[in-house]
Amino acid sequence: MMKTFSSVLLVSLLFSYCSAADFCVGDIKSALTPSGYPCKPAAKVSVDDFVFSGLGVAGNTTSIINAAVTPAFVEQFPGLNGLGISLARLDLAPNGVIPMHTHPAANEVLVVVQGSIVGGFVSSASKVYLKTLKKGDTMIFPKGLLHFQINARGINSIALVSFSDPEPGLQLTDFAFFANDLPTELVAKTTFLDPKTIKALKGVLGGTN
Amino acid sequence: MMKTFSSVLLVSLLFSYCSAADFCVGDIKSALTPSGYPCKPAAKVSVDDFVFSGLGVAGNTTSIINAAVTPAFVEQFPGLNGLGISLARLDLAPNGVIPMHTHPAANEVLVVVQGSIVGGFVSSASKVYLKTLKKGDTMIFPKGLLHFQINARGINSIALVSFSDPEPGLQLTDFAFFANDLPTELVAKTTFLDPKTIKALKGVLGGTN
Amino acid sequence: MMKTFSSVLLVSLLFSYCSAADFCVGDIKSALTPSGYPCKPAAKVSVDDFVFSGLGVAGNTTSIINAAVTPAFVEQFPGLNGLGISLARLDLAPNGVIPMHTHPAANEVLVVVQGSIVGGFVSSASKVYLKTLKKGDTMIFPKGLLHFQINARGINSIALVSFSDPEPGLQLTDFAFFANDLPTELVAKTTFLDPKTIKALKGVLGGTN
Amino acid sequence: MMKTFSSVLLVSLLFSYCSAADFCVGDIKSALTPSGYPCKPAAKVSVDDFVFSGLGVAGNTTSIINAAVTPAFVEQFPGLNGLGISLARLDLAPNGVIPMHTHPAANEVLVVVQGSIVGGFVSSASKVYLKTLKKGDTMIFPKGLLHFQINARGINSIALVSFSDPEPGLQLTDFAFFANDLPTELVAKTTFLDPKTIKALKGVLGGTN
Amino acid sequence: MMKTFSSVLLVSLLFSYCSAADFCVGDIKSALTPSGYPCKPAAKVSVDDFVFSGLGVAGNTTSIINAAVTPAFVEQFPGLNGLGISLARLDLAPNGVIPMHTHPAANEVLVVVQGSIVGGFVSSASKVYLKTLKKGDTMIFPKGLLHFQINARGINSIALVSFSDPEPGLQLTDFAFFANDLPTELVAKTTFLDPKTIKALKGVLGGTN
Amino acid sequence: MMKTFSSVLLVSLLFSYCSAADFCVGDIKSALTPSGYPCKPAAKVSVDDFVFSGLGVAGNTTSIINAAVTPAFVEQFPGLNGLGISLARLDLAPNGVIPMHTHPAANEVLVVVQGSIVGGFVSSASKVYLKTLKKGDTMIFPKGLLHFQINARGINSIALVSFSDPEPGLQLTDFAFFANDLPTELVAKTTFLDPKTIKALKGVLGGTN
Repeated sequence: MMKTFSSVLLVSLLFSYCSAADFCVGDIKSALTPSGYPCKPAAKVSVDDFVFSGLGVAGNTTSIINAAVTPAFVEQFPGLNGLGISLARLDLAPNGVIPMHTHPAANEVLVVVQGSIVGGFVSSASKVYLKTLKKGDTMIFPKGLLHFQINARGINSIALVSFSDPEPGLQLTDFAFFANDLPTELVAKTTFLDPKTIKALKGVLGGTN
Repeated sequence: MMKTFSSVLLVSLLFSYCSAADFCVGDIKSALTPSGYPCKPAAKVSVDDFVFSGLGVAGNTTSIINAAVTPAFVEQFPGLNGLGISLARLDLAPNGVIPMHTHPAANEVLVVVQGSIVGGFVSSASKVYLKTLKKGDTMIFPKGLLHFQINARGINSIALVSFSDPEPGLQLTDFAFFANDLPTELVAKTTFLDPKTIKALKGVLGGTN
Repeated sequence: MMKTFSSVLLVSLLFSYCSAADFCVGDIKSALTPSGYPCKPAAKVSVDDFVFSGLGVAGNTTSIINAAVTPAFVEQFPGLNGLGISLARLDLAPNGVIPMHTHPAANEVLVVVQGSIVGGFVSSASKVYLKTLKKGDTMIFPKGLLHFQINARGINSIALVSFSDPEPGLQLTDFAFFANDLPTELVAKTTFLDPKTIKALKGVLGGTN
Repeated sequence: MMKTFSSVLLVSLLFSYCSAADFCVGDIKSALTPSGYPCKPAAKVSVDDFVFSGLGVAGNTTSIINAAVTPAFVEQFPGLNGLGISLARLDLAPNGVIPMHTHPAANEVLVVVQGSIVGGFVSSASKVYLKTLKKGDTMIFPKGLLHFQINARGINSIALVSFSDPEPGLQLTDFAFFANDLPTELVAKTTFLDPKTIKALKGVLGGTN
Repeated sequence: MMKTFSSVLLVSLLFSYCSAADFCVGDIKSALTPSGYPCKPAAKVSVDDFVFSGLGVAGNTTSIINAAVTPAFVEQFPGLNGLGISLARLDLAPNGVIPMHTHPAANEVLVVVQGSIVGGFVSSASKVYLKTLKKGDTMIFPKGLLHFQINARGINSIALVSFSDPEPGLQLTDFAFFANDLPTELVAKTTFLDPKTIKALKGVLGGTN
Repeated sequence: MMKTFSSVLLVSLLFSYCSAADFCVGDIKSALTPSGYPCKPAAKVSVDDFVFSGLGVAGNTTSIINAAVTPAFVEQFPGLNGLGISLARLDLAPNGVIPMHTHPAANEVLVVVQGSIVGGFVSSASKVYLKTLKKGDTMIFPKGLLHFQINARGINSIALVSFSDPEPGLQLTDFAFFANDLPTELVAKTTFLDPKTIKALKGVLGGTN
């Protein structure tokens, strides 16, 4: 039924023209482009480019938010380059809070892996979508909308979150308002907060002006 | 050089197979899809579907922000459906402010058409990009990032803004935090603002809880 | 500092023009389009459209593969419609195997949540990428490439997998070859398997011809 | 090695959740959307939806251009809906010409199947790319650029062309200028052609005004 | 309510992993890719990369078309790189004409900022869409379709145009036909214009052959 | 009607700002990005970058499959870079078979140019779509689905195939299973084939382990 081995080699040869771009492991030291990082040469790619162990380690929750975000974005996990997806791990200690924030470039889907979490987001129409999630529950947070996660039951909780982009971005509202040199007067004018409140939070978060 | 007219008709006929989807004027009463609204039948499309006069009318700036946004998004201008672009007009009276907000789905480019405007945005890394713009100046506000515009010189100012999507969305931070039923306790936990400030702003913006 | 409440309402009114398509919960009884299902009317959308509990339930692993796939694709979780992402849960009993398969429409990222799993995929160039993953490890399986998962240590194992599309698709090679009416002769010619092997597997998997 | 048949059915059942949108045969009587036509229900799709015989028939080249275009676009071949590709057949009799035209929505790749053809296109920078193609030669015509094909050797010639969109569109410059009611004065002002020439071509091509 | 400042730094640190690609200012001296130019390093980006003043300057309308196009495409305004949008300014002196042309890569939306302009485009089906626009009016010109703009009332007129791509392209039909070395015989065959007309226009526009 | 030639040059100059990215001929020696190769400088691009003659040459069908695939993918034909399309030629000698395979990144459309071919594909739902195609017939093979082509009538047959991506990829199932070092035990577990069959095919196709 089969011809000789040498003719097999020929098939192999014929199809070797067709070596496709099955993946594009990011060469993250090269300049980014709008579609992602240039690809590492295929010859230098090994299985280790597709495996990441960082999500197995608990984040440090001893900060003021009693919570931690451990990203597996393209910079941490270059195998995700160009694949339209990334991950992160959330650790929330008993009083843990992931404060109000947005991901400018990605939809988010969260799965509670341990404990219980309150998830909430607000739509452009200012409607609130709020839910207490138990272990195994999944919740969607649409791209660019303000949202937060809070420990729901006072026990250590963990979630795995997936994003629809290798670089979802993350903008924490408080950091945007109070952790930089945006003049207090401009913050006041554009947020309706009073200067005293602003200056207090700038003090806490390291902002100036 | 030419054959008879009837053979021209034949050419016409041959090419009429190729009636392309040059555009897709939105039938905005039908259900939206992820790519936009279904198209109005080509036979019912006239030039008026591609012309919009709303941006020629000054917005009402007598509100608390002394400013107005007049959108030409797909709902107002269905000809934009599927075209990857939309517009808006900003009117800023002498103390006018477009408060901190994001467009979850679009990049924005603003051109000052009259007066002078301070534009500012904050990156994910909490860096501030701030500029006083004069008539004719253009400024970019990247997708999903917090930004604002303020009247710069105390004279009525106007800007035309373009978006990279027919439905850019608009989320005003203050409205998301204070103009709905998100419980004060949750706002406090996720923004670090104190309950008194929150309740005051809820009072002003019509929020409850 | 604030004007009257009625002027707030005016701002609210001005911005209400801008009610964006923040999301597009799928009306999965309507006809699909190439970009996904038509959107459920925003007024009928509640937080429950964004929450799914199916991944919290262990799959039934008593089948011949001692494994189960529990999808949270757009048909099970219509809130994912148009969002470029979906999920699934894998349960692998001690001898569990997710046999060779592809997802024609999505990249996959797997996280081991319990136990240990061997993941493997084969590139277009027929190179094998193989790894034993422990709890917390993440592995990428690029779009359209043949891959499999196997229980690694003889203990019940669970993984959460994320896909870069709400409808990733799933084509099991054995089912494609042996679980339908594709004539044995054609299977033989196109796979180099002998008719006896094919007929045996057709027998097991319910194929005919 | 195998369990019983009923457990196979269970696997089958488990995976049947995952019935993916492998394709989206267009229901071309429904309203188009920006991403294409709604999909025909999968249950009504047969192999005939994926097969088209129209390109096997020679086009009628007895018109003034001595040439014919036979499209296999989504309207003729609804199986192409949403697939990002379409085809056409060109027949050029000895003096055949496909006049200057553009495809607003697609790149084109032409393969000469019989005879010989001169292909040419002009870039935005007004540079000419011109080549005489023999049987088996392939030529690219980038999206939206003016191009043409001419019979090169006075023998019946045939080409297969592929497009990067199911609806490439086709705008013949002469038809756009002279085969409608665009006033002669406006054509003159916007093309620098003199009114006499314009009126003559309007006469030939059926234009008015 | 707050912990110490050092724990704030820790939050800051945790989130600093997540430095997103909020934007991609083009390094326009590097090689272009299909998705745009490589990004300038974020550390070298300042607000001036997002501000452009060129549209504030009137174009020189003393040419044969009594009109000028001032682009703010990615080459002039590298901040637009990868953002899916660009702008231009049109100046039309009393007899000003932007002759028949297409943008191969972008939809266009025009707003009249001063004076009055006649806009027109022709569909693939050769139907004409024509309108006299006054100050404040907006008109859509779909991607790849032939269109023009003419001064409507004999007064200096200005328009701002937005495009759905940072590199919309611009192909002027007359320049494509008459301002290069495309042989007169080929122009005649593919446009139905007579050689004398072609040679005259080649003379005016600098074409040869 | 015309001004002087020097004013023409001015127009030319004005529009020269707008030199668009009409195309992006791939510089295939540079690193690939997720959107394709960097572009060759426009000044070095000639018509030969858009012309390819390789599909005019019959493939060598003396291998075990009595068939050959001659690709015109981006690596062979760099002009296709970024254009969303590519081609290939199939030659099937009397017993020719293109064995079961997938293209992970592209839809395929095949046109029979000579002879007769049986085409078949299997959907995710394991349904078979099978057809005997005669000269001139076209058949669609959707992205990522297993498919094959077989000589239908014992005469030399040729097909032209088009793909919806410049790098469609090609994964032959037999090569993925048997032409590498994937351990026989893992192949057995994940395909239900018995080790003896696997070792025999590994022997023929050059696999080990």
